[in-house]
Amino acid sequence: MTSSICRSEKVSEPPENGGPPDSFHKWSKFCRKCGAGMSVVDEGDKTWRHMCINCKYIDYFNPKMVVGCIVEHEGRILLCKRGIDPCKGKWTVPAGFMELDESTAGGAARETYEEAAANVEIVAPYFHLDIPAIGQSYVLFRSKLAEPYTFSSGTETLDVKLFEPDAVPFQELAFSSVSIALRHYIEDLRDGRFRVHHAEIEKLPGSAPNDPHSFRLRNHMQFRIESS
Amino acid sequence: MTSSICRSEKVSEPPENGGPPDSFHKWSKFCRKCGAGMSVVDEGDKTWRHMCINCKYIDYFNPKMVVGCIVEHEGRILLCKRGIDPCKGKWTVPAGFMELDESTAGGAARETYEEAAANVEIVAPYFHLDIPAIGQSYVLFRSKLAEPYTFSSGTETLDVKLFEPDAVPFQELAFSSVSIALRHYIEDLRDGRFRVHHAEIEKLPGSAPNDPHSFRLRNHMQFRIESS
Repeated sequence: MTSSICRSEKVSEPPENGGPPDSFHKWSKFCRKCGAGMSVVDEGDKTWRHMCINCKYIDYFNPKMVVGCIVEHEGRILLCKRGIDPCKGKWTVPAGFMELDESTAGGAARETYEEAAANVEIVAPYFHLDIPAIGQSYVLFRSKLAEPYTFSSGTETLDVKLFEPDAVPFQELAFSSVSIALRHYIEDLRDGRFRVHHAEIEKLPGSAPNDPHSFRLRNHMQFRIESS
Repeated sequence: MTSSICRSEKVSEPPENGGPPDSFHKWSKFCRKCGAGMSVVDEGDKTWRHMCINCKYIDYFNPKMVVGCIVEHEGRILLCKRGIDPCKGKWTVPAGFMELDESTAGGAARETYEEAAANVEIVAPYFHLDIPAIGQSYVLFRSKLAEPYTFSSGTETLDVKLFEPDAVPFQELAFSSVSIALRHYIEDLRDGRFRVHHAEIEKLPGSAPNDPHSFRLRNHMQFRIESS
Protein backbone atom coordinates (compact mmCIF):
# COMPACT_ATOMS: atom_id res chain seq x y z
CA MET A 1 0.00 0.00 0.00
CA THR A 2 2.96 2.34 0.49
CA SER A 3 2.89 3.52 -3.10
CA SER A 4 -0.53 5.02 -2.62
CA ILE A 5 0.48 7.12 0.36
CA CYS A 6 1.40 10.75 -0.02
CA ARG A 7 1.54 13.64 2.41
CA SER A 8 -1.64 15.18 1.14
CA GLU A 9 -3.08 16.14 4.46
CA LYS A 10 -1.02 17.55 7.26
CA VAL A 11 -2.28 16.40 10.62
CA SER A 12 -1.73 19.10 13.21
CA GLU A 13 -0.23 18.24 16.59
CA PRO A 14 -2.81 17.41 19.23
CA PRO A 15 -3.11 19.96 22.02
CA GLU A 16 -1.24 19.03 25.18
CA ASN A 17 -2.94 19.05 28.54
CA GLY A 18 -1.09 22.12 29.75
CA GLY A 19 -1.74 24.38 26.79
CA PRO A 20 -1.85 24.64 23.00
CA PRO A 21 0.73 22.76 20.92
CA ASP A 22 4.03 24.57 20.32
CA SER A 23 3.20 24.98 16.64
CA PHE A 24 0.09 26.96 17.57
CA HIS A 25 2.25 29.91 18.59
CA LYS A 26 3.71 30.10 15.09
CA TRP A 27 0.34 30.44 13.35
CA SER A 28 0.00 34.08 14.23
CA LYS A 29 3.14 35.80 15.57
CA PHE A 30 2.21 39.34 14.58
CA CYS A 31 -1.11 41.20 14.54
CA ARG A 32 -2.45 41.57 11.02
CA LYS A 33 -4.18 44.80 12.07
CA CYS A 34 -1.47 46.73 13.96
CA GLY A 35 1.73 44.68 13.57
CA ALA A 36 2.31 44.15 17.32
CA GLY A 37 3.13 40.75 18.83
CA MET A 38 0.44 38.17 19.50
CA SER A 39 -0.21 36.32 22.73
CA VAL A 40 -2.02 33.01 23.17
CA VAL A 41 -4.96 33.24 25.56
CA ASP A 42 -7.47 30.72 26.87
CA GLU A 43 -10.98 31.87 26.02
CA GLY A 44 -12.34 29.23 28.42
CA ASP A 45 -12.37 25.44 28.42
CA LYS A 46 -8.96 25.42 26.71
CA THR A 47 -10.22 27.17 23.64
CA TRP A 48 -6.98 28.86 22.65
CA ARG A 49 -7.00 32.12 20.71
CA HIS A 50 -4.35 34.39 19.28
CA MET A 51 -4.80 37.87 20.76
CA CYS A 52 -2.79 41.00 19.97
CA ILE A 53 -0.89 42.34 22.99
CA ASN A 54 -1.51 45.89 21.76
CA CYS A 55 -4.94 46.27 20.12
CA LYS A 56 -6.50 43.04 21.50
CA TYR A 57 -7.51 41.89 17.98
CA ILE A 58 -8.27 38.16 17.98
CA ASP A 59 -6.98 36.24 14.97
CA TYR A 60 -9.50 33.39 14.58
CA PHE A 61 -8.65 30.19 12.76
CA ASN A 62 -11.65 28.26 11.48
CA PRO A 63 -12.08 25.19 9.29
CA LYS A 64 -11.75 25.72 5.57
CA MET A 65 -14.29 24.35 3.13
CA VAL A 66 -13.16 22.24 0.21
CA VAL A 67 -15.77 22.08 -2.55
CA GLY A 68 -15.83 19.80 -5.56
CA CYS A 69 -17.80 17.70 -8.03
CA ILE A 70 -18.25 14.05 -8.80
CA VAL A 71 -18.84 14.53 -12.52
CA GLU A 72 -20.78 11.87 -14.42
CA HIS A 73 -20.92 11.51 -18.18
CA GLU A 74 -22.56 8.59 -19.96
CA GLY A 75 -22.17 6.39 -16.89
CA ARG A 76 -18.53 7.21 -16.38
CA ILE A 77 -16.82 9.34 -13.73
CA LEU A 78 -14.45 12.20 -14.52
CA LEU A 79 -11.17 12.22 -12.59
CA CYS A 80 -8.15 14.52 -12.71
CA LYS A 81 -4.51 13.49 -12.33
CA ARG A 82 -2.91 16.06 -10.07
CA GLY A 83 -0.10 18.13 -11.56
CA ILE A 84 0.95 19.72 -8.28
CA ASP A 85 1.75 18.63 -4.77
CA PRO A 86 0.38 17.38 -2.50
CA CYS A 87 -0.12 14.05 -4.23
CA LYS A 88 1.23 15.00 -7.66
CA GLY A 89 0.45 12.15 -10.08
CA LYS A 90 -2.50 10.81 -8.05
CA TRP A 91 -6.11 10.92 -9.19
CA THR A 92 -8.89 12.95 -7.62
CA VAL A 93 -12.22 14.60 -8.33
CA PRO A 94 -12.01 18.30 -9.23
CA ALA A 95 -12.11 20.19 -5.92
CA GLY A 96 -10.45 23.02 -4.06
CA PHE A 97 -10.83 25.69 -1.39
CA MET A 98 -14.04 27.68 -1.47
CA GLU A 99 -13.52 31.39 -2.05
CA LEU A 100 -15.02 34.19 0.03
CA ASP A 101 -17.46 35.49 -2.57
CA GLU A 102 -19.01 32.26 -3.80
CA SER A 103 -21.41 29.49 -2.84
CA THR A 104 -20.36 25.88 -2.27
CA ALA A 105 -22.04 24.80 -5.53
CA GLY A 106 -20.57 27.77 -7.42
CA GLY A 107 -17.12 27.03 -6.02
CA ALA A 108 -17.40 23.36 -6.95
CA ALA A 109 -18.32 24.28 -10.54
CA ARG A 110 -15.46 26.82 -10.68
CA GLU A 111 -12.92 24.27 -9.47
CA THR A 112 -14.18 21.80 -12.05
CA TYR A 113 -13.70 24.35 -14.77
CA GLU A 114 -10.22 25.31 -13.53
CA GLU A 115 -8.96 21.75 -13.15
CA ALA A 116 -10.74 19.95 -15.98
CA ALA A 117 -11.96 22.74 -18.33
CA ALA A 118 -15.38 21.15 -17.97
CA ASN A 119 -18.79 22.76 -17.61
CA VAL A 120 -21.09 20.95 -15.23
CA GLU A 121 -24.68 20.93 -14.13
CA ILE A 122 -24.88 20.50 -10.36
CA VAL A 123 -27.47 17.80 -9.56
CA ALA A 124 -27.45 17.44 -5.78
CA PRO A 125 -25.27 17.71 -2.70
CA TYR A 126 -23.74 14.29 -2.20
CA PHE A 127 -21.19 13.90 0.59
CA HIS A 128 -20.27 16.28 3.40
CA LEU A 129 -17.07 15.04 5.04
CA ASP A 130 -15.45 16.80 7.98
CA ILE A 131 -11.78 16.20 8.69
CA PRO A 132 -11.19 17.87 12.07
CA ALA A 133 -7.53 16.78 12.25
CA ILE A 134 -6.67 19.05 9.33
CA GLY A 135 -9.38 21.67 9.80
CA GLN A 136 -11.15 20.90 6.53
CA SER A 137 -14.75 20.27 5.59
CA TYR A 138 -15.42 18.69 2.18
CA VAL A 139 -18.68 19.35 0.33
CA LEU A 140 -18.89 17.20 -2.80
CA PHE A 141 -21.73 17.44 -5.30
CA ARG A 142 -23.13 15.03 -7.81
CA SER A 143 -23.00 16.69 -11.21
CA LYS A 144 -23.28 15.99 -14.91
CA LEU A 145 -20.95 17.07 -17.66
CA ALA A 146 -22.69 19.90 -19.51
CA GLU A 147 -22.41 21.44 -22.97
CA PRO A 148 -20.15 21.34 -24.91
CA TYR A 149 -19.35 18.05 -23.06
CA THR A 150 -15.61 18.59 -23.44
CA PHE A 151 -12.78 18.51 -20.92
CA SER A 152 -9.02 18.89 -20.85
CA SER A 153 -6.20 19.36 -18.36
CA GLY A 154 -6.09 22.64 -16.46
CA THR A 155 -2.79 24.25 -15.43
CA GLU A 156 -2.60 22.20 -12.21
CA THR A 157 -3.69 18.94 -13.85
CA LEU A 158 -1.65 16.34 -15.76
CA ASP A 159 -4.54 14.41 -17.25
CA VAL A 160 -8.34 14.18 -17.21
CA LYS A 161 -10.17 10.96 -17.98
CA LEU A 162 -13.59 9.37 -17.74
CA PHE A 163 -13.50 6.10 -15.79
CA GLU A 164 -16.01 3.30 -15.78
CA PRO A 165 -17.12 2.76 -12.15
CA ASP A 166 -15.31 -0.59 -12.09
CA ALA A 167 -12.09 1.03 -13.27
CA VAL A 168 -11.76 3.86 -10.74
CA PRO A 169 -8.12 3.64 -9.57
CA PHE A 170 -8.75 3.43 -5.83
CA GLN A 171 -5.11 2.57 -5.09
CA GLU A 172 -4.00 5.71 -6.90
CA LEU A 173 -6.41 8.25 -5.44
CA ALA A 174 -4.96 11.35 -3.79
CA PHE A 175 -7.22 11.83 -0.78
CA SER A 176 -9.06 9.65 1.71
CA SER A 177 -12.14 11.93 1.47
CA VAL A 178 -12.34 11.37 -2.28
CA SER A 179 -11.86 7.64 -1.83
CA ILE A 180 -14.73 7.46 0.67
CA ALA A 181 -17.05 9.57 -1.46
CA LEU A 182 -16.36 7.58 -4.64
CA ARG A 183 -16.83 4.22 -2.91
CA HIS A 184 -20.27 5.28 -1.72
CA TYR A 185 -21.09 6.86 -5.07
CA ILE A 186 -20.39 3.61 -6.89
CA GLU A 187 -22.36 1.68 -4.26
CA ASP A 188 -25.31 4.03 -4.81
CA LEU A 189 -24.98 3.67 -8.58
CA ARG A 190 -25.26 -0.11 -8.23
CA ASP A 191 -28.15 0.29 -5.83
CA GLY A 192 -29.89 2.40 -8.48
CA ARG A 193 -30.74 5.04 -5.91
CA PHE A 194 -28.66 7.88 -4.53
CA ARG A 195 -28.25 8.88 -0.94
CA VAL A 196 -27.02 12.01 0.75
CA HIS A 197 -24.16 11.39 3.15
CA HIS A 198 -22.69 13.28 6.07
CA ALA A 199 -19.73 11.92 8.03
CA GLU A 200 -16.46 12.67 9.74
CA ILE A 201 -13.01 11.32 8.96
CA GLU A 202 -11.07 10.57 12.11
CA LYS A 203 -7.37 10.40 11.31
CA LEU A 204 -5.48 7.81 13.32
CA PRO A 205 -2.38 9.20 15.04
CA GLY A 206 1.02 7.98 13.95
CA SER A 207 0.17 6.94 10.40
CA ALA A 208 0.38 8.72 7.07
CA PRO A 209 -2.75 10.87 6.91
CA ASN A 210 -4.25 9.40 3.76
CA ASP A 211 -3.11 5.83 4.15
CA PRO A 212 -6.25 3.80 3.34
CA HIS A 213 -6.01 2.28 6.82
CA SER A 214 -5.17 5.42 8.76
CA PHE A 215 -8.66 6.75 9.36
CA ARG A 216 -12.08 5.80 10.65
CA LEU A 217 -15.36 7.01 9.22
CA ARG A 218 -17.37 8.34 12.15
CA ASN A 219 -20.95 9.48 12.67
CA HIS A 220 -21.97 8.51 9.19
CA MET A 221 -25.52 9.71 8.45
CA GLN A 222 -26.96 8.57 5.14
CA PHE A 223 -30.41 8.91 3.66
CA ARG A 224 -31.86 7.60 0.43
CA ILE A 225 -33.49 10.39 -1.53
CA GLU A 226 -36.65 10.15 -3.60
CA SER A 227 -35.37 11.48 -6.90
CA SER A 228 -32.19 12.89 -8.30
CA MET B 1 -41.27 45.29 9.21
CA THR B 2 -38.66 47.72 10.47
CA SER B 3 -38.77 46.37 14.01
CA SER B 4 -37.50 43.00 12.84
CA ILE B 5 -34.41 44.44 11.15
CA CYS B 6 -31.07 44.44 12.88
CA ARG B 7 -27.51 44.70 11.63
CA SER B 8 -26.82 41.06 12.11
CA GLU B 9 -24.95 40.46 8.92
CA LYS B 10 -22.45 42.91 7.51
CA VAL B 11 -22.49 42.91 3.74
CA SER B 12 -18.99 43.57 2.43
CA GLU B 13 -18.45 46.14 -0.30
CA PRO B 14 -18.56 44.69 -3.79
CA PRO B 15 -15.25 44.66 -5.64
CA GLU B 16 -14.81 47.54 -8.06
CA ASN B 17 -13.85 46.93 -11.64
CA GLY B 18 -10.37 48.36 -11.21
CA GLY B 19 -9.34 46.41 -8.13
CA PRO B 20 -10.43 45.16 -4.73
CA PRO B 21 -12.62 47.39 -2.53
CA ASP B 22 -10.75 49.88 -0.34
CA SER B 23 -11.74 47.97 2.79
CA PHE B 24 -9.93 44.90 1.46
CA HIS B 25 -6.57 46.55 2.17
CA LYS B 26 -7.47 46.85 5.85
CA TRP B 27 -8.14 43.15 6.34
CA SER B 28 -4.48 42.27 6.51
CA LYS B 29 -2.07 45.19 6.91
CA PHE B 30 0.80 43.28 8.51
CA CYS B 31 2.16 39.79 7.93
CA ARG B 32 1.12 37.42 10.71
CA LYS B 33 4.30 35.39 10.12
CA CYS B 34 7.07 38.06 9.93
CA GLY B 35 5.35 41.37 10.78
CA ALA B 36 6.24 43.11 7.49
CA GLY B 37 3.69 45.06 5.44
CA MET B 38 1.20 43.32 3.16
CA SER B 39 0.53 44.08 -0.50
CA VAL B 40 -2.60 43.22 -2.46
CA VAL B 41 -1.89 41.15 -5.56
CA ASP B 42 -4.05 39.73 -8.31
CA GLU B 43 -3.66 35.97 -8.44
CA GLY B 44 -5.43 35.97 -11.81
CA ASP B 45 -8.97 36.78 -12.96
CA LYS B 46 -9.19 39.44 -10.26
CA THR B 47 -8.77 37.00 -7.43
CA TRP B 48 -7.18 39.37 -4.94
CA ARG B 49 -4.83 38.09 -2.26
CA HIS B 50 -2.92 39.65 0.61
CA MET B 51 0.79 38.88 0.15
CA CYS B 52 3.66 39.82 2.46
CA ILE B 53 6.16 42.18 0.80
CA ASN B 54 8.99 40.46 2.72
CA CYS B 55 8.37 36.70 3.10
CA LYS B 56 5.66 36.36 0.40
CA TYR B 57 3.27 34.67 2.84
CA ILE B 58 -0.30 34.78 1.50
CA ASP B 59 -2.99 35.53 4.06
CA TYR B 60 -6.06 33.71 2.73
CA PHE B 61 -9.59 34.66 3.72
CA ASN B 62 -12.14 31.91 3.26
CA PRO B 63 -15.80 31.52 4.18
CA LYS B 64 -16.57 30.62 7.78
CA MET B 65 -18.93 27.83 8.67
CA VAL B 66 -21.81 28.48 11.04
CA VAL B 67 -23.20 25.28 12.55
CA GLY B 68 -26.38 24.83 14.54
CA CYS B 69 -29.37 22.72 15.46
CA ILE B 70 -33.10 22.83 14.92
CA VAL B 71 -34.01 21.09 18.18
CA GLU B 72 -37.36 19.30 18.42
CA HIS B 73 -39.01 18.14 21.62
CA GLU B 74 -42.54 16.71 21.77
CA GLY B 75 -43.48 18.43 18.54
CA ARG B 76 -42.15 21.80 19.58
CA ILE B 77 -39.06 23.72 18.44
CA LEU B 78 -36.42 25.10 20.79
CA LEU B 79 -35.40 28.71 20.21
CA CYS B 80 -33.00 31.01 22.04
CA LYS B 81 -33.44 34.73 22.64
CA ARG B 82 -30.09 36.35 21.95
CA GLY B 83 -28.39 38.10 24.84
CA ILE B 84 -25.66 39.69 22.73
CA ASP B 85 -25.39 41.70 19.56
CA PRO B 86 -25.91 41.34 16.70
CA CYS B 87 -29.68 41.10 17.10
CA LYS B 88 -29.83 41.13 20.89
CA GLY B 89 -33.39 40.30 21.95
CA LYS B 90 -34.25 38.44 18.74
CA TRP B 91 -34.92 34.70 18.54
CA THR B 92 -32.76 32.13 16.78
CA VAL B 93 -31.81 28.48 16.75
CA PRO B 94 -28.65 27.63 18.71
CA ALA B 95 -25.75 28.10 16.27
CA GLY B 96 -22.28 29.59 16.01
CA PHE B 97 -18.91 29.45 14.30
CA MET B 98 -17.42 26.01 13.83
CA GLU B 99 -14.09 25.53 15.61
CA LEU B 100 -10.94 24.15 14.05
CA ASP B 101 -10.88 20.83 15.89
CA GLU B 102 -14.47 19.72 15.52
CA SER B 103 -16.98 18.35 13.03
CA THR B 104 -20.03 20.26 11.83
CA ALA B 105 -22.34 17.98 13.83
CA GLY B 106 -20.07 18.17 16.89
CA GLY B 107 -19.92 21.95 16.62
CA ALA B 108 -23.70 22.20 16.28
CA ALA B 109 -24.17 20.11 19.44
CA ARG B 110 -21.55 22.18 21.29
CA GLU B 111 -23.25 25.45 20.34
CA THR B 112 -26.59 24.05 21.49
CA TYR B 113 -25.10 23.15 24.83
CA GLU B 114 -23.42 26.56 25.21
CA GLU B 115 -26.48 28.60 24.27
CA ALA B 116 -29.32 26.48 25.64
CA ALA B 117 -27.65 24.08 28.14
CA ALA B 118 -29.36 21.33 26.16
CA ASN B 119 -28.10 17.91 25.13
CA VAL B 120 -29.19 16.85 21.67
CA GLU B 121 -29.20 13.82 19.46
CA ILE B 122 -28.31 14.84 15.90
CA VAL B 123 -30.82 13.21 13.51
CA ALA B 124 -29.85 14.42 10.04
CA PRO B 125 -28.31 17.30 8.13
CA TYR B 126 -31.18 19.59 7.21
CA PHE B 127 -30.30 22.87 5.49
CA HIS B 128 -27.01 24.04 4.01
CA LEU B 129 -27.28 27.77 3.28
CA ASP B 130 -24.44 29.76 1.74
CA ILE B 131 -24.39 33.53 2.19
CA PRO B 132 -21.60 34.71 -0.13
CA ALA B 133 -22.15 38.40 0.64
CA ILE B 134 -20.98 37.88 4.22
CA GLY B 135 -18.64 34.93 3.64
CA GLN B 136 -20.67 32.49 5.71
CA SER B 137 -21.96 29.00 5.12
CA TYR B 138 -24.68 27.70 7.46
CA VAL B 139 -25.04 23.99 8.19
CA LEU B 140 -28.16 23.34 10.27
CA PHE B 141 -29.09 19.89 11.60
CA ARG B 142 -32.36 18.36 12.64
CA SER B 143 -31.97 17.13 16.19
CA LYS B 144 -33.92 15.95 19.19
CA LEU B 145 -33.65 17.09 22.76
CA ALA B 146 -31.81 14.33 24.65
CA GLU B 147 -31.57 13.26 28.28
CA PRO B 148 -32.08 14.83 30.76
CA TYR B 149 -34.43 16.80 28.44
CA THR B 150 -33.69 20.07 30.21
CA PHE B 151 -32.59 23.46 28.94
CA SER B 152 -31.81 26.91 30.27
CA SER B 153 -30.23 30.15 29.17
CA GLY B 154 -26.50 30.14 28.46
CA THR B 155 -24.30 33.17 29.15
CA GLU B 156 -25.08 34.71 25.74
CA THR B 157 -28.79 33.91 25.87
CA LEU B 158 -31.68 35.81 27.54
CA ASP B 159 -34.29 33.09 27.29
CA VAL B 160 -34.88 29.60 25.87
CA LYS B 161 -38.34 28.35 24.98
CA LEU B 162 -40.10 25.57 23.11
CA PHE B 163 -42.46 26.90 20.45
CA GLU B 164 -45.33 25.16 18.76
CA PRO B 165 -44.68 25.30 14.99
CA ASP B 166 -47.60 27.70 14.56
CA ALA B 167 -46.19 30.02 17.21
CA VAL B 168 -42.62 30.48 15.92
CA PRO B 169 -42.05 34.26 16.07
CA PHE B 170 -40.99 34.80 12.45
CA GLN B 171 -41.18 38.60 12.79
CA GLU B 172 -38.76 38.44 15.71
CA LEU B 173 -36.13 36.08 14.32
CA ALA B 174 -32.52 37.25 14.25
CA PHE B 175 -31.26 35.91 10.93
CA SER B 176 -32.62 35.39 7.45
CA SER B 177 -30.91 31.99 7.26
CA VAL B 178 -32.76 30.81 10.36
CA SER B 179 -36.04 32.18 9.05
CA ILE B 180 -35.63 30.27 5.77
CA ALA B 181 -34.63 27.03 7.48
CA LEU B 182 -37.51 27.17 9.98
CA ARG B 183 -40.11 27.95 7.28
CA HIS B 184 -39.05 24.87 5.36
CA TYR B 185 -38.82 22.78 8.50
CA ILE B 186 -42.42 23.60 9.41
CA GLU B 187 -43.51 22.94 5.81
CA ASP B 188 -41.81 19.53 5.98
CA LEU B 189 -43.42 18.81 9.35
CA ARG B 190 -46.85 19.46 7.83
CA ASP B 191 -45.93 17.39 4.81
CA GLY B 192 -45.08 14.54 7.19
CA ARG B 193 -41.80 13.94 5.39
CA PHE B 194 -38.46 15.67 5.71
CA ARG B 195 -36.24 16.90 2.94
CA VAL B 196 -32.61 17.88 2.78
CA HIS B 197 -32.06 21.38 1.44
CA HIS B 198 -29.15 23.20 -0.09
CA ALA B 199 -29.44 26.82 -1.21
CA GLU B 200 -27.80 30.21 -1.39
CA ILE B 201 -28.97 33.49 0.09
CA GLU B 202 -28.37 36.38 -2.27
CA LYS B 203 -28.42 39.64 -0.34
CA LEU B 204 -29.94 42.53 -2.24
CA PRO B 205 -27.72 45.63 -2.29
CA GLY B 206 -28.87 48.75 -0.52
CA SER B 207 -31.12 47.14 2.08
CA ALA B 208 -30.57 45.98 5.63
CA PRO B 209 -28.96 42.56 5.31
CA ASN B 210 -31.55 40.56 7.21
CA ASP B 211 -34.65 42.48 6.21
CA PRO B 212 -37.15 39.74 5.27
CA HIS B 213 -37.38 41.33 1.82
CA SER B 214 -33.70 42.02 1.25
CA PHE B 215 -32.63 38.64 -0.10
CA ARG B 216 -33.43 36.04 -2.69
CA LEU B 217 -33.14 32.29 -2.20
CA ARG B 218 -31.09 31.00 -5.12
CA ASN B 219 -30.21 27.57 -6.48
CA HIS B 220 -32.45 25.80 -4.01
CA MET B 221 -31.94 22.02 -4.24
CA GLN B 222 -34.30 19.94 -2.11
CA PHE B 223 -34.85 16.22 -1.88
CA ARG B 224 -37.33 14.19 0.11
CA ILE B 225 -35.59 11.52 2.11
CA GLU B 226 -36.85 8.03 2.80
CA SER B 227 -36.60 7.95 6.57
CA SER B 228 -35.38 10.17 9.32
